[in-house]
Formats: sequence, C-alpha cells, structure tokens
Amino acid sequence: MLVVMKPHATEAEIEAVVDRIRSLGFTPHPIPGAQRVAIGVTGNKGSIDTAQFETMPGVADAIRVSQPFKLVSREVKEEDTVIDVGGVPLGGNALAIMAGPCSVESREQILETAHAVKAAGARFLRGGAFKPRTSPYEFQGLAEEGLKLLALAREQTGLKVVTEVMDSETLPMVSDYADVLQIGARNMQNFSLMKQLGRIRKPVLLKRGPSATIKEWLMAAEYVVAGGNYQVALCERGIRTFETMTRNTLDLNAVPVLKALTHLPVVVDPSHGIGLRAHVAAMARAGIAAGADGVIVEVHPRPDRALSDGQQSLTPREFEDLMKQVRVIAGALGRAV
Amino acid sequence: MLVVMKPHATEAEIEAVVDRIRSLGFTPHPIPGAQRVAIGVTGNKGSIDTAQFETMPGVADAIRVSQPFKLVSREVKEEDTVIDVGGVPLGGNALAIMAGPCSVESREQILETAHAVKAAGARFLRGGAFKPRTSPYEFQGLAEEGLKLLALAREQTGLKVVTEVMDSETLPMVSDYADVLQIGARNMQNFSLMKQLGRIRKPVLLKRGPSATIKEWLMAAEYVVAGGNYQVALCERGIRTFETMTRNTLDLNAVPVLKALTHLPVVVDPSHGIGLRAHVAAMARAGIAAGADGVIVEVHPRPDRALSDGQQSLTPREFEDLMKQVRVIAGALGRAV
Amino acid sequence: MLVVMKPHATEAEIEAVVDRIRSLGFTPHPIPGAQRVAIGVTGNKGSIDTAQFETMPGVADAIRVSQPFKLVSREVKEEDTVIDVGGVPLGGNALAIMAGPCSVESREQILETAHAVKAAGARFLRGGAFKPRTSPYEFQGLAEEGLKLLALAREQTGLKVVTEVMDSETLPMVSDYADVLQIGARNMQNFSLMKQLGRIRKPVLLKRGPSATIKEWLMAAEYVVAGGNYQVALCERGIRTFETMTRNTLDLNAVPVLKALTHLPVVVDPSHGIGLRAHVAAMARAGIAAGADGVIVEVHPRPDRALSDGQQSLTPREFEDLMKQVRVIAGALGRAV
Amino acid sequence: MLVVMKPHATEAEIEAVVDRIRSLGFTPHPIPGAQRVAIGVTGNKGSIDTAQFETMPGVADAIRVSQPFKLVSREVKEEDTVIDVGGVPLGGNALAIMAGPCSVESREQILETAHAVKAAGARFLRGGAFKPRTSPYEFQGLAEEGLKLLALAREQTGLKVVTEVMDSETLPMVSDYADVLQIGARNMQNFSLMKQLGRIRKPVLLKRGPSATIKEWLMAAEYVVAGGNYQVALCERGIRTFETMTRNTLDLNAVPVLKALTHLPVVVDPSHGIGLRAHVAAMARAGIAAGADGVIVEVHPRPDRALSDGQQSLTPREFEDLMKQVRVIAGALGRAV
Repeated sequence: MLVVMKPHATEAEIEAVVDRIRSLGFTPHPIPGAQRVAIGVTGNKGSIDTAQFETMPGVADAIRVSQPFKLVSREVKEEDTVIDVGGVPLGGNALAIMAGPCSVESREQILETAHAVKAAGARFLRGGAFKPRTSPYEFQGLAEEGLKLLALAREQTGLKVVTEVMDSETLPMVSDYADVLQIGARNMQNFSLMKQLGRIRKPVLLKRGPSATIKEWLMAAEYVVAGGNYQVALCERGIRTFETMTRNTLDLNAVPVLKALTHLPVVVDPSHGIGLRAHVAAMARAGIAAGADGVIVEVHPRPDRALSDGQQSLTPREFEDLMKQVRVIAGALGRAV
Repeated sequence: MLVVMKPHATEAEIEAVVDRIRSLGFTPHPIPGAQRVAIGVTGNKGSIDTAQFETMPGVADAIRVSQPFKLVSREVKEEDTVIDVGGVPLGGNALAIMAGPCSVESREQILETAHAVKAAGARFLRGGAFKPRTSPYEFQGLAEEGLKLLALAREQTGLKVVTEVMDSETLPMVSDYADVLQIGARNMQNFSLMKQLGRIRKPVLLKRGPSATIKEWLMAAEYVVAGGNYQVALCERGIRTFETMTRNTLDLNAVPVLKALTHLPVVVDPSHGIGLRAHVAAMARAGIAAGADGVIVEVHPRPDRALSDGQQSLTPREFEDLMKQVRVIAGALGRAV
Repeated sequence: MLVVMKPHATEAEIEAVVDRIRSLGFTPHPIPGAQRVAIGVTGNKGSIDTAQFETMPGVADAIRVSQPFKLVSREVKEEDTVIDVGGVPLGGNALAIMAGPCSVESREQILETAHAVKAAGARFLRGGAFKPRTSPYEFQGLAEEGLKLLALAREQTGLKVVTEVMDSETLPMVSDYADVLQIGARNMQNFSLMKQLGRIRKPVLLKRGPSATIKEWLMAAEYVVAGGNYQVALCERGIRTFETMTRNTLDLNAVPVLKALTHLPVVVDPSHGIGLRAHVAAMARAGIAAGADGVIVEVHPRPDRALSDGQQSLTPREFEDLMKQVRVIAGALGRAV
Repeated sequence: MLVVMKPHATEAEIEAVVDRIRSLGFTPHPIPGAQRVAIGVTGNKGSIDTAQFETMPGVADAIRVSQPFKLVSREVKEEDTVIDVGGVPLGGNALAIMAGPCSVESREQILETAHAVKAAGARFLRGGAFKPRTSPYEFQGLAEEGLKLLALAREQTGLKVVTEVMDSETLPMVSDYADVLQIGARNMQNFSLMKQLGRIRKPVLLKRGPSATIKEWLMAAEYVVAGGNYQVALCERGIRTFETMTRNTLDLNAVPVLKALTHLPVVVDPSHGIGLRAHVAAMARAGIAAGADGVIVEVHPRPDRALSDGQQSLTPREFEDLMKQVRVIAGALGRAV
C-alpha cells in the first residue's frame, strides 16, 4: 500500500501516518517527491484496509500497489527519478552518456580516454579497478591504484566517475573515489551487498543479471531502495540466450517495459550487450531510440592492446561518430544530450 | 568458392566457367549483379584450387567463402539485394513499411485498415488468411476468402500484399494472390517448403524461428536461394528466452550482425517481438535505429475485438504517430521512407 | 468437457450423447477405452452446463477439463495409452526400446545394425530415409531406397520400423513402409502436417520442438488426436538452452510432468538430447529412472564413418551394455523390457 | 601444465620442482594424491616447455592441461576426490544423501526432520539459517539462532550439517557451526566470496548458477581450489530455460559431463531443480541413474506450512519411499548408499 500525502501536509501529519503504520505491525517508507510526500507500506500479508488512512489529516489518497516491487514502482511514484550526481543529472530529459575503458590500465590510458570522451560529449567516465573475471588466472584490476587514477581523471576533466564495487570489504574504499557505484551483472542478486548499498548515500548503477527477469531485477533494486537509498539507476547489459554469434543478447525490450513499470532511470550498455565492436554503435542508437535514459560505452585508445574487453571497445574516434548519431536520434525524441 | 567475372565478361566466358565447375563435379550458381556476374560454387568438400579459375578469360577473381552459408553471404555478393516487388523496393535505401491486421477477418476490416496504413505511409499490406495456431480449436483464418479480400484491398490502394503460406498444398493458391510470401517462424526449418520456395519466382519474407540461431536462419534462406529464388528477405520477430514479461524477446542484435553477414534485406517485426501494444512503437523505432531495412507492424481498427493478436496491434492512429517518428530516425541515418 | 459413459453403455446411448453435443454446436470426440467410452467436447467458449448430460441414459459422469489440451489430457482419459504396433506395445508396463542408425546408408549397414540391436533386446528399428538437414549442401537421405532397406531389415528381424516423415508429399510413401511415423523436432508445429497425421491410422512418434514448451507440445499432439488418430507417442529429445558443451539439453523434467498431464506414452532420445557418445548411456538410464516408457538410441556399426550424427551413435557393443543396465533399472521400478 | 611426481618422490624433489616453477615466474599448486603428488602450474601465457621438468629427479611426467580450468580438471587429478566430512564421505563409491528443510524454522521442526531423515538413511542434514530471497519483504532466515538449532540436531543425530553462507561477514560464524558450507546459485560468481572460501579449510558445496555454463561453474570452483581449499563438491540445481511448467530445468546432462571433466564430487538437487513435490522423487532417481555422487532433498514435516519452498518439499514418509528406490538404482550401478 502507498499513502500519498497532500502537497502541503505538515511534518506532524506525516508522522502520524508513519506511527499508524507501525502500530499495525508494518514498515513505513516515507518517499519525498517534488510535489508531495508518499509513504510506502510493506510487511503486510494480504491487503490493508485503505479507509483507515484516507480519513487522516493531510492524506490525499491511500492506494494498493499490485506489484511485488513497491518503492521502485511507478504506481508509488509517477514522476521519473532524476539522480543528481554532483550536478550532473542521471535520469530525466537529458541523456546520461558514460564512456571509458573496461579496466583502468595505466595513468596514460585513463587520462587519454577521459579527455577524448569528454570532448565527444560524455559526462561520466567509466573504468574498472576491481574486475570480476570468470577465471582466477585473468587480470583482476589495479585495485586502489586504479581508483586513484580515476580520481585524477575526474580532477582533470570534471567527468563523474562510474566504477564497480564487488564486495562489502571494498565498498568504503570504492565509495571514497566513485561518484556512481556500478554493481556488476553477476552480483545483482548478491542480497547482502544490496542491503549494504541501501545503507549508504551514493548513486548506484545496478546491472541486470545475465539471466535475471525484469521482475527479479526490480526486486534487487527494491532491496537498495527499501534500505533507504533512492539513488538507483538500472543498466541493461544483455541477457544469456541460445545465440552464440553475439556475446550476450542486449534485451532492448526491457527498456520500454521498465520505463512503464518503474520511475528509476534506465541506461543501456551496448558494449557488453552485443560484444562486437563493429555493432556497438548500432545497438547504442537502438537503445536511445527505444527510450533509454543513457548509454554506457567502452572506449579504449588502442582496443587491440586492452587487458580486457578489447574486442568490444570503440576507439575515441568511433565514439565521437556515435555521439553525433545519438544527438540526432535524441533530438527526434525531444531529448537533449 | 565464388568466381567473380569482370564487368564486361561475355556470355561465352561465363558459360566456360560454369562448364569447368560442372566438370569438377561441383554445382555452379550464377548470381547476376548490378555491375558484374558472380558464380557461386557448392558441393565441394575441402577447398578448391582457385588458380585454375583466375586465369580463365573474363574472370576477375576467384575467392574462397569461409561461411557455411554461401549464396546469401556478403562474401559472395557485396552489394545489398533490393527486391523489386512490382515496382516497390524491399531492401536498399528506402525503408519498407508493412502494416495490417494479424488475420484478415472481414471485407470492412481489411479495407479500412488498408486505406489507413496507406495514408500513414505504408507500401505493403500484411494480413493472414492461413493462420498457424498453437491450439487446433482456435480461429484458423479465412483461407481463400481472405486472400480475395487482400487482393481487393490491393486493387483499391495499390499496396503490395504480404501474406503467409503454411504448406506446399496451398502454395500455388497463395502465390496467385500474394506479392510477398511470408514464411512463419515455426516453418523456418520446414526444409521441404524451403525447397519448394526455391523453385518459384516470388519474393519470400522468411521469419526467424523462435529458437533459431542467426546461422541456422541464414542456412534456411540458403535453401531457398540455392534453389534459384534470390528474392528473399529476413524478418526478425523475437526469440524465445526465459523472460516472461514480453511475449518474445525481439533480438535487435541480429540486425547489425545480419547486415554484415548477408546481402539480403532485414525487416523487423516489433508486434510479435515484444507483443505488447504500448511498447510496439519503441521497438519499431529501435529496429530502424539498429539499421533494419523495414518494419512489419500489426494494425487493427479495433484491436480489442481482433480475432487474433489484438493485444499487440496498434490502432491506425497509433501507427500514424509511429510513422512520424520513423521518418525522423530514418532521416538521421540518411534513409528515406 | 468430457462425458464419461458407463462401462456397459449401449451404442445407442453413446450416439444420443454425440447428437446432443452436435446440436449444441460443439464437436464430439468419442474416445474408446479399455473399460468404457468417453466423449470429449471441444469448440465451446466458456463452460458448458454438465447437468444436461449427467441425466442422460448410459452416462456415468460429465466433467470439466481445465487444460487447453483436452483429448490428450489425463483428465479425459486416466489410463495409460498403449499403442499396439503390430503386436509390439508402445506404452504401458513394458519399455519400448528403439535403436538404429541416424540415417539408412546402405543395405549392409542397416541389416548389420538391425540384427545387432535385435539381439540386444530392441523391438523397434530406427533409421532415417528423409533427413532434415540445417544445410542444403549436406546428405539428405536415401529416400525411397532407404525405406525399402528398412522394410528388408524388418522382414529379416521382425523389428518394427520407426522412420521420419518430413512432409505431406511423401507421407503416403513413408506410411507404406513405416510402422511408426517419426515427426522431427523442427516439424512439431508444422500444423498442416499435424492435421494430415490426424487423418491417417498409423502410430506417430512426435518429437518435442527444440524450444517448445510442454504445453505447446501437448497442443501439437492434440492436433493429431483431434483429427481422429489416437496413436500418438511423445519423444523428448533435448531443448535449446544457453549451454554449449552438450548438443542440446535433454529435459528429463518433462518426463514426470508429462506422465502426470497426459495418457500418451513418453519416449526419451538421449542421443540427440546430449549429443555425445560417451554420455548417451547415462542419459538413457536417467530417462528410464525418471519414468519414461521407452528410449530411442542411435546405434551405428562404425560411428566414425557415419554420414550423420556419428559423434552421438553407440556401437552395437555399447548398446548391448546399456541394455543390461536398463533392465536392472526397469526392474527396480517394476517394469519389464 | 601439470608436473606429476613419482610415487616415492622425496620432499626435496618436490620442493625443487616448486622452486623451478617459481623461478620461471609462474605459480605452483602442489596437489597431494593417494598415490603421488602432482604440481599444477598456472600463470603462464602460452605453453611451457615440459622437457625441462621431465628430466628433474622424482618427476614421472609433465603434461599440458588443455582446459581453462586446471586444478579441478581430471587431466590434473585422475582419481575421484572424496571429501572427508568428519568421517562421512562426500564423493567416492558411497552416495552422499543430504536432506532437510529449506529453512530452519523452529527447534521442533528441525529436530523432527533430522530424526526422520536420519532414520531413512540420510547422512547430512540440510537447512538454511541465512536465506537469499528475491524480495526484501520475505522471510530471511533465523540467522545464528538457526545455526544453533542445526548444531543441536547434529548433536542428537550425528548428521553432518550443510548450510548456506551468503557473504564474507557471516562466513566465520557459519563456519563455526557448519560441516559443509553451501554456496547458493546466485552467489556462484561472487568471486570475492570464492576467494575467501579458498582461504579456509571447510568443505564447500557449490551450487550452479541458474545461467552458468558448465565451464563457468568449473572456473568458479577453480577460484576456491586455486586458493588452496581442495574440498569442493558441485551441486546441479536446475538452470533457467524458457520452460515455465517447472521451477527450473534440472540439467542432468551436466552430471556425466562433469564426471568426465572433473574429479570433484557431483550432487544433484531435484527439489530446486524441478520445484514440484510430486516429481522430486523421479528426478532424484534420474540423477542417481545419471551418475551423481549424491542428492540433496528438501524434506519438511508439514510442507504446506513451510515458510519457504513448501511446494517442493517431501514429507518424511515420501523421503523414506524415495530412499528405497535410490538404494536399488545405486545397487544397479554398483554403488552403496
């Protein structure tokens, strides 16, 4: 259930509703909005009588939420969530453009890439310092050294840093450097980590698990939001299917479906999604055309020498060309870059 | 192997190459192109010595084809195939827009729809007279009565008719009425039917099987082309995955992959692909942005009363709106509608 | 709905029920059973009032059928269907053991195999004369010559012949030679063919499509049975998943699920299912342990020289060893071989 | 590469090989076997010259390992790994039978279940104290209270305790109570956790991720073993496919494939695999027939009142019946229970 307060409801009125919910043995989740406060209710089995709330002072409406995901649902919050990443919006009308290498490899590599993607129009720099790798014998990332290089690139360019956190042990360290915490696909249902992300106040970019249904993905986001961290964006990065010609199957169907179901921003990762450099631009264009709120693209100055994911990384020049096309398509849909 | 003739090679020179191929026990497939003739060679095990052809008069080049699909491959024919459907192109720079109801239901229904989609910019009218249905107890189509109604709609509007053929028994009848023969997803590997389609001279729109790999799909097209019918277009209509929120998973990754591998036109079916009316337009836009040569969209004057697929059919008004967006995105990619 | 007649209901009483069903505009399907006749009713939308049938003479019960598949459902016929293949049972307590090469290749090959699998305990000989192949350039089978060789092997061994029919054109010819008509996975939703199989009186072994749900598979069988041919057995042969180490994923989960939902016999094909010779025996054993009514196994005297599927064919010796294990497991479940 | 020492190689000879490997810049992994010591080598790119090792004193052979997984491979260790769980074997000829409720719910529930499954023949008690749940609003387990109840059940019955650990924070606590640490499917590629499991000395039961390939699964096990913990068993628990009639698709094909590729024990979880109580026994039988080294089965005294997974839990009586069948099938394969 969701209790929607009137636009000018007082703090005391809100508090009274919260108390009533608690007295019934349920859990209240106040959700501040641009216009008004709403209070999500969870913990009930079966439906709650809405009438007892509708007559309370300051209450505009009490509505049942039909989906298993509640706080991330559009039923609960109709307007799009726009995450403020230190002045740069993630979500809303302007597209969020994120670009950079798969892994941070060296000072020269990350700085060269950062300046190039900034010049082409990116506002966020991606780059991994902790790398989840299928094999224990592969390059696992530069760790804190990589985070420091990302911070240096931010200092020089003003780009916001998006980087992956793999576990709770390194969460404090990564949070110190990152502007947006990326959660990798294989960790999407690492519920212990989701709960910890709920307790901090840092934007989260939650990648879809390779075999996660849209519903499971929204439930994972619900873990973070239910913990109190409302700054969550979703990133479609390809699902696992029977097709072997592409690395994954970028599921663009998820984009319009998510935009209808949730108020959270939706970003598309064409690089992991299709996994083939020649086709990344086509999928990035398609993602924007499908209604995504942003793209995250792997860019490397010398893809053939990359320590990871070189086969799917664009050169800075290819990225620049892509950005021109993205701008036109965004314009056709009434959006800015 | 492929033997590429010089632009002004004579008939006699071509014939000599064909004879040489036959004398080696292989099968020649002459493929006329805009600039020059090429001759595909199949039936060999292991590679053929190309040198013996390169020195023949009129031969420009003899090249090995690495893919299991040969005649449909870009290695064999670099330029895009443009199918001439009675004056309307399918393939090439101009997008092929196909629209109409899932099933032909009545004279009024098909005529109303045909005029509406024509006004909005479609050049092809889709509509099923023979319907493959999961259950034997569901509506199976109007059969020849439906074909006659499609012909009537063509007469009134000039739209080209795209309609499904399900078996060899009805192939002659459907061919009499159709401009383009649609092959349904479940028949993609009905090899007996593929062979028969190779013997006729009618454009074929070959839908991807719900669990067909891109390679299997191209091999199915190869059956038709190897039989001598070069007028084949491919239609991505969604694959089967674990996701249950959408009817299928429209695999737009297939679009750029196919455009690189084959010279055949690629059409996208967002209606079956996502299966949810609210999201068909988003997927149609995305398909065009990914590089498709056309879209095929279900349109019904009263979707809620449709005998099949009402939940994924656009109203004529919604289709009109979609066409406006498609025109802008096509323009951004340098294509006409 | 299903109208169940009393054990000794007269022909006239049965006829009266059939007439009443027709007079309501529905279609009656009389289903003879060992103890009594039941009459399936299809063609209704919404539920039918059962009371009007329950009071008719000779009627024991009138029950609603909740599944979309009706005539193949256990709700409609509780006892197992046992198909009498010229004196050899397919279904029921005794396991049906089918074995033989993927393709009939020569007189010597098929006769040698037939004698060997007969000696090891098989009652059915499998072998393809018409082969559906992904590529038009691969071996397509010996056609009628292959059917004649199968008939010769039957003459010499008494084994019943199971062979694939690919299309309606060759259906009469294949029916002349075969004891059981095998329908390949890719043809499972070839509805035109299903309808034709409903009109003949020959046992059908219906393979599961590589991405067919259990429900779709039962609906395909329903096409055949609704046409009047009750002699249908189902064959699980592996579904398509993301796993690439095995050719397909033999879905043994389907075995107990089917045995609960339908009265039709269920056979398992471990050869196509896992596609790796070394592991065929393990999957055959597992299929029997899961409750299958039979197995169909590829056996070839010289697998490494087979024209198709050699990598998944057992030698006669390996098949003999497998049969010993199968007998013990069958015994543990109270079944005979 | 793997260096195999002679049966009576001295400590000094082994040490010399280890030193040589290190001096080349690679990492040595000594693997003690029943007959002899082998030393895995990782960290090399490209192949190493084996000759330089073959001539060293005490070396029997130096062999190249072709698979990306090394230490878990049968190429490296031919004989089956048998994990000694406090005197009870996991792996080897005797089947490991694990049973118990999904979640520990109360003292009465776990004790009643433990005594019942012990009486029926189980040697391991399963039960979750920390539960990964799709929704943050579902029952999350009794935590340490649940672990204490498991320890109490062990004390009373002698059963070994198998229980899930979800994260590194609770790893020390769970290790204090558990005999075998279960890693849930969604954590299979939680590489931080895998690395930590490599550092402890406690048997690990590693469930397959719902969309993990067999290769990825073995690579996850490789993380643990490469860290120094050789006590890893694999648990097939169903993969995600398009089929919706079963909860998951228990992939029994993985059993013979794994038994060929790895020396680690393989356990099957039919409860999660098929997810339907009526069919759990069939899949357990099939798993044993396919060659699994054990089964893990959910048993609950009153499944319809279970706080989780009731729909797939057997009653103690059903489990007892299953064990009788398992004994016969095990006997047919020459194995003990």
